[in-house]
This record gives sequence, structure tokens and C-alpha cells, in this order.
Amino acid sequence: MRHFISVNQLSKENIISLIETAEKFKQEQYYINQQIFAANLFFEPSTRTKMSFIVAQKKLGLEELDFHSETSSVQKGESLYDTARTFESIGAQLLVVRHPADNWINEINANVNIPIINGGSGKEEHPTQCMLDLLTIYQEFGYFEGLNIVIAGDIKHSRVARSNANALKKLGVNVYLCAAPNFEDNTLDFPYVTMDEAVELCDALMLLRIQHERHKSSSGNTYHYLENFGLTKERERRMKSHAIILHPAPVNRGVEMDTDLVECDRSRIFKQMTNGVYMRMAIIIKLLQEWGILHEHAIEKRQTITA
Amino acid sequence: MRHFISVNQLSKENIISLIETAEKFKQEQYYINQQIFAANLFFEPSTRTKMSFIVAQKKLGLEELDFHSETSSVQKGESLYDTARTFESIGAQLLVVRHPADNWINEINANVNIPIINGGSGKEEHPTQCMLDLLTIYQEFGYFEGLNIVIAGDIKHSRVARSNANALKKLGVNVYLCAAPNFEDNTLDFPYVTMDEAVELCDALMLLRIQHERHKSSSGNTYHYLENFGLTKERERRMKSHAIILHPAPVNRGVEMDTDLVECDRSRIFKQMTNGVYMRMAIIIKLLQEWGILHEHAIEKRQTITA
Amino acid sequence: MRHFISVNQLSKENIISLIETAEKFKQEQYYINQQIFAANLFFEPSTRTKMSFIVAQKKLGLEELDFHSETSSVQKGESLYDTARTFESIGAQLLVVRHPADNWINEINANVNIPIINGGSGKEEHPTQCMLDLLTIYQEFGYFEGLNIVIAGDIKHSRVARSNANALKKLGVNVYLCAAPNFEDNTLDFPYVTMDEAVELCDALMLLRIQHERHKSSSGNTYHYLENFGLTKERERRMKSHAIILHPAPVNRGVEMDTDLVECDRSRIFKQMTNGVYMRMAIIIKLLQEWGILHEHAIEKRQTITA
Repeated sequence: MRHFISVNQLSKENIISLIETAEKFKQEQYYINQQIFAANLFFEPSTRTKMSFIVAQKKLGLEELDFHSETSSVQKGESLYDTARTFESIGAQLLVVRHPADNWINEINANVNIPIINGGSGKEEHPTQCMLDLLTIYQEFGYFEGLNIVIAGDIKHSRVARSNANALKKLGVNVYLCAAPNFEDNTLDFPYVTMDEAVELCDALMLLRIQHERHKSSSGNTYHYLENFGLTKERERRMKSHAIILHPAPVNRGVEMDTDLVECDRSRIFKQMTNGVYMRMAIIIKLLQEWGILHEHAIEKRQTITA
Repeated sequence: MRHFISVNQLSKENIISLIETAEKFKQEQYYINQQIFAANLFFEPSTRTKMSFIVAQKKLGLEELDFHSETSSVQKGESLYDTARTFESIGAQLLVVRHPADNWINEINANVNIPIINGGSGKEEHPTQCMLDLLTIYQEFGYFEGLNIVIAGDIKHSRVARSNANALKKLGVNVYLCAAPNFEDNTLDFPYVTMDEAVELCDALMLLRIQHERHKSSSGNTYHYLENFGLTKERERRMKSHAIILHPAPVNRGVEMDTDLVECDRSRIFKQMTNGVYMRMAIIIKLLQEWGILHEHAIEKRQTITA
Repeated sequence: MRHFISVNQLSKENIISLIETAEKFKQEQYYINQQIFAANLFFEPSTRTKMSFIVAQKKLGLEELDFHSETSSVQKGESLYDTARTFESIGAQLLVVRHPADNWINEINANVNIPIINGGSGKEEHPTQCMLDLLTIYQEFGYFEGLNIVIAGDIKHSRVARSNANALKKLGVNVYLCAAPNFEDNTLDFPYVTMDEAVELCDALMLLRIQHERHKSSSGNTYHYLENFGLTKERERRMKSHAIILHPAPVNRGVEMDTDLVECDRSRIFKQMTNGVYMRMAIIIKLLQEWGILHEHAIEKRQTITA
């Protein structure tokens, strides 16, 4: 794998292998005993994804370079390509990029000679979010084949929906979509259900954030959204006893779901964030290994104090 | 102590104990031999407090996570509570928070299960500033009982005045206030003196910054402030020979005090900043120990080169 | 040397010595086994220079403090002097400063008692850029004496032109300038040539960035700039076979030079960035040694894994 751009690149075996590596990192502390620089180039606001990558890098013992586009030469008109080549030139050996353009990867793919991880591209892909969702589901059930999973919410503007739906299908999941009429995306070939149907059939309900910030016009009134299309307390009570709730966050509390459900027993929302760190560690290690950047004995167990 | 929110939580013994720990860190270099993540969530501009916490964390060998609210999901409407829980979920074991709301701690107190240090809350509290002031005074005199200390300036909008006044009183100090009429706060039960009286009676003069940025209306004309209410060179000459000057900085030079006095012999302004690092180290260690986060032999002396 | 402010401070021997140290750091990994804090105070946008200093510091094992003026007490009116003294007080032992004022160094020179490196001062000086340019030229030719070097572009607004021209002259280079009429600076005592003359006579062509952001009025139309004054492909073909192209970046692609030439065989533009890290390491070490901050055996070779 040259760059980690899309979950479409991954076979079923690749996905399971990453999940297993992430689990290993969750159980025991490993780090890299080389000095390796990773640069995080975020051109859009982010708390979770950026900070999760930074924690993953620090846990692995990488040196992280924190780029701030608003005080960088981007203000003088420098392009993503020239920014990426600059970081390569000053010593970065790994780039994590989030950029609002859908196809930024095409701009930098060919000539940047260090591995790149997609931290979110326009409304197209967010593959590390997808992978942490898969880890969270796998922890719960131990398998994917035959699970019923509903992806619900702002399908049209979500960069999580498309990649998750395809990856889940590849893993044998029965995927359903659920959206308000203006949030449907009919280029996706999966059956739509209502939220009332969704809560009764699903093993996992993957809620999406309403991406106000991606809507061209003000999406305006979300006043009745919760009762019409969201997860109310009444609907949550009709879910199967083992069914779980996921959301990439930040949650619009009281819109996609009742605020009281964000930390209810079935919610895995904060667990997803914890998983994100370990999954990103696994992805980083995989890329560094495939590029031959790691020495043979570069991965060591962190010593903890016992005496 | 669950969180470090207010000096009102602290007994006289707690205060002296923190001062002694800070002194120890000033004399010898100690660090923690565990990988522990601390996140600094500053929602208001800061140089001194934020950088001081970062230096304290790095001296202790902690991994620090530098949150930038202006490029975070706060821009998508994420609350302080969800931000704090996010950092907890991705692995932070300590939060330092500065936020403009007076009562933000109530928002996050109950459900955030890692220690929190108040780095400044609205106009209410700034307990680490108070503690470094106390350290600075203690270094000078070796005791508190019976000292005459005047807190002078913008009492009304200061988050330092109230906590300092109460803590000093608890320690047996005779506390006086001094303010221009529009800066008085009559909810504080301490005697007011004029600046001319203040300079003659005090052992320590604690000047406050005029918080232009907290005033609802433009405070406008500070042209005559110095001569009417500030520390002029003439007034400084009337101070007792051993008396010292403190200020939390940044100083409005030529307003609260004559610019030439900022680094005069009695000024402890930059020493306060140095002390701030060691006091914050002491507070961090205390919290990590009380929460049981540190292993038994986690604190080690830093080796320096001798050969 | 008290502070590293201008290449005018450096003798020919100083320059060669720094080049040799930088080369050593490029060949082998060295780091400092003391805990030393460096603060990067950038008051203007920067990617290359700031990140290059940060990588240099991390390679040397320094602790770096990343100051963000836009969320600092500068927003409350704090001056550069008080900011610098604050960082000194909280433990910084080295400052890197970029500031738009031409003479900021005068403001902080006398009373800040830690070494300062000029990371760019107004339109006057950018000495670390100059030194990395010299390193890049030296790597190519192995000597300076008698080389023909043309500095071409926005001479008037460049902080690189003046220092480079003087340093190159000191090293025995035949220095020429080349500029559009409105970009000439007649206070510089070097001969002007046209771009057509420049490409044929030079061993190294040092292009400058058009500093749109420093022009008082909009410099407006750069439409015909490339063909009239820039490096077109046709002109590049007329350069001597061994001649090289330098540019401090970011390049205005299609203005100072044809976009296809940015990564052509003669271009050393990205190599300059790589060199910048090693040159800054050399400058940092030199200052820390001259100030007596380093212990005797503080510089160690980084162990790499062999087993």
C-alpha cells in the first residue's frame, strides 16, 4: 500500500489484520526506538481526529510536527503540494492530511515520496474513522458476517457513510441506510429504512453528524429533526437488547439523538474515540513497515515500573 | 482533592506543603518515568499560564497535548464538556482548563474522570496564579502571619484578587484592598486604603492588571490612572526598604505602574513567572498522586552529566 | 557571538565553520543529553523556517515551545520585549524570533539574557536563510572564490537579498543583481544585469520571491512578469550545464519561474529546505556552546539499532 487513502483499498484480510494489531496496541504498550518525524497537515477544524493521531504518534514514540495552516505560508498562497514536499524535505517520514478538496490526493500522490494517511478528504473519504468504527463493532460481536447495521443521518454530506457502507458490505454485513429525504444519496446502492424500522432491525446503529458546515445553504430548521428522523429515547427503548449505537462525533445533541443517550449503556461513542488511537497506531505501523522505514528491531515493548 | 479548582479548597497545611514541594522542584530536577498525557484546553488567550503549564509538564516528562480551540471542533459547536470527555477518551490523564465562563467547572465536574486543574475561570478564580504568588511571598519572608499585604487595582474584574485575599487571610496576613472607585468590589470584606497609604504600610504590594478585555464597556481613559491610582516612582520611594512588588502580568506599562519599575529591585514580577513553573509542577504531582495515577517509584531524579 | 542576528557578524572562517558543522550533522545523528528549552516566537506566517527550526531542535533533543501570537497575551497588548522576558523567566534557554519590525532586536538585545536567533526581521535580515543558501552552494562547488552568482527578483522587498549579497562578496563571489525596474534597490552596490544576461553568466541563480505581502500597494499585474523578468524554460536552457537554481520558497509558480522548473535537474529548492535543518542545528549548537549552556559531554551520537 503506497498511501492510506480509502478503505476500498483494503481486502477483508487487511481489515481483520489491522483490527488485530489495534487490539494488540490496546493490550500492551509498544513504541518505536527510532527517531521518526510525522507531520499532521490539517486544513480543516478537528479535535478528535487530529488529537487522536497525535496521541497515536506519541504513544509510538514518533516526533510529531503540528502544522497550523492559518499561520503558515498557505497564507502566502502556498499549495498543498508544495506544503507536503516542504515537510518531506525537512525530514517528515509520514504525513497525515485533512483537506476540504475531494481529490487532494491526486495533487500529491505521485511526487511525494513518503507515506500519506488520509485524515479526511472533502466529503469523499475518512478511512481511519471507518476503521475505528469497524474495530468497535468487532469488539462487540467478534464477527461481521450477517450483522444488520443501519447507517442513519446526513448520508449525502457525510464522508463516513460511503466508505463505511462499502467496507461493511465487503465484510458480509447487511447494510441499510436511513435518512431524511434531503439527506438521501441515491448513488449508494443500499436499501433505505425509516428510523422506526432501523431501531428494531439493527445490531448496530451508526448515526452520522449533520454536517451544517458542509451544507451550501443554511440547513436551517432542525427543530423537528429529532422526533422525525433522530434517535429519541422512545425509539432507543425499542432496540434489541444487545444493539449498540455509534456516532463519529461531535454529536449535535438533541438533533441526531436525544442528549441523554450520548452516554447511555448502548452508546459506544466515547469508546470509538479510545479505539481511534489504537487503530491509528496500527495504520501508522503498517505504512512505516511497508515502506521499509522501520529497522528490523524497531518496535519495542514499553517498560513499566514494577519494583 | 478531586480537581484543583479554588484555593478555598486548601487548608493552611495544604498550601505550605505545595510551597515546599515547589521549592524542592526548584532545587533539583525530578521527572516521572511513566508515559502520562496532559491536555491544555485554553479557550482564552494566554502566554504565561499556558506556557508555564507546558514547561512544567515537560520538566516532569509528561506528554503534553496542545489544544487550539480556534481550529478545533469547538468551531462546529462542540461544548467544553464534550471536548473534555473527548480528551479523556483519547488518553489524557490530566486536563488544564481556562475558559471564560464563571462556572465551567460545574459543567464538567461530575462526569470527567480525570483530574482537572483550573487555569483561569471567568472572573472568579485563578488558583495556580494565587499559589505562585504565595510561593513568591514565602520565599521573601519565610512566613505569612502578621504581614501587611495590599491588593491594588482592578479588584472588580480580577480573578486573582478574590482568591488571593481569602488565601492570605487564612494564612494570617493583614489584607488590604486599594482601587479606583469604579474598580472597587464591595462584596469583599477587607478594608480599603488609598495608594498613598498602601505604599507606606505594605510588606508586599500585589498590583492587578486592568482587565480591559473583561470590561463590558470601553474603560477608556487611563491617562491619569497612574498618577491617581497607580504605582509612580515617587510612591515607590516611600515603600518600606524590604517591601516587594508583585503583578500577575502582562503589565499595562505606565498604567498600573511606571514602566521603569517593572524590573526595579523590589519587583518580583519575572520571578513570579519562574515560580509559576515549579508551583504548577507541585500541583500536577499532588493531583496525579491523589488519583493514584503514579506508580510507586514513578518520580525519579534527572541525571545530569558529570563525567 | 551574543545573538545570531545578521550574517554581517560572521567572518569568512565563521561561515566555513558553520557549513562544516552542518555537513557533520547531515552525515551523523547527534543530540544533546541535557533538558534545554527553545522557544519559537513567530509573529509572522511561516512554514519552512519555523518547522525547520522545530525539526532542528527535535533532532538535537531540545524541548521546543511553540508560541502562537494569535492566542497569546500579545492580544492583550503585550510587547515583544515582555514576551521574550516571559519565556526567559519560565525556563527558555534559546529564542528564535521572527517579527515584522525591522529593528526588533534593538528592543530586546540588552536585557534578554539568553541567546536569540533571528528567524526573519522585517525586510532587513534573514540570516539562517542566507547560511543555508551558502551551504547549498558550497555542497555544489566546494568553494566560493570566483563564482558568478546572480540574485534575481524582488530585491527591494527581500530580506534575503541584502544579507546574501554581502556574505557572498565577503567569500570572494562575483555578485550580480537582476530586477524589474520597480524592484531595484539602488542602496546596494552591486552591478545589475538583465535576466537574459544572468542565465548565461551565472554559476548559481538565486531567485527571490515576490513579496506580495510586503508591498504597501497591491503589486497587481504579474501577468507578463515571467516572460519579461522571470526564469522561463527558454532561458533555463541557456544556463551553463553545471549552473544551479536556488529559491527561498514559497515559489510563486509561473511568476518568478516556470512551474515546470521548480523541480528540474538544476533546481536545489527542496534541497535548500533539507539543508536548512542541518544549518540551523549548527547555529543552535554554536550559540549554546558560546553561552556556556552545554555541559562538557552534552553532545552525543544517536544510537541506531543494529542487532
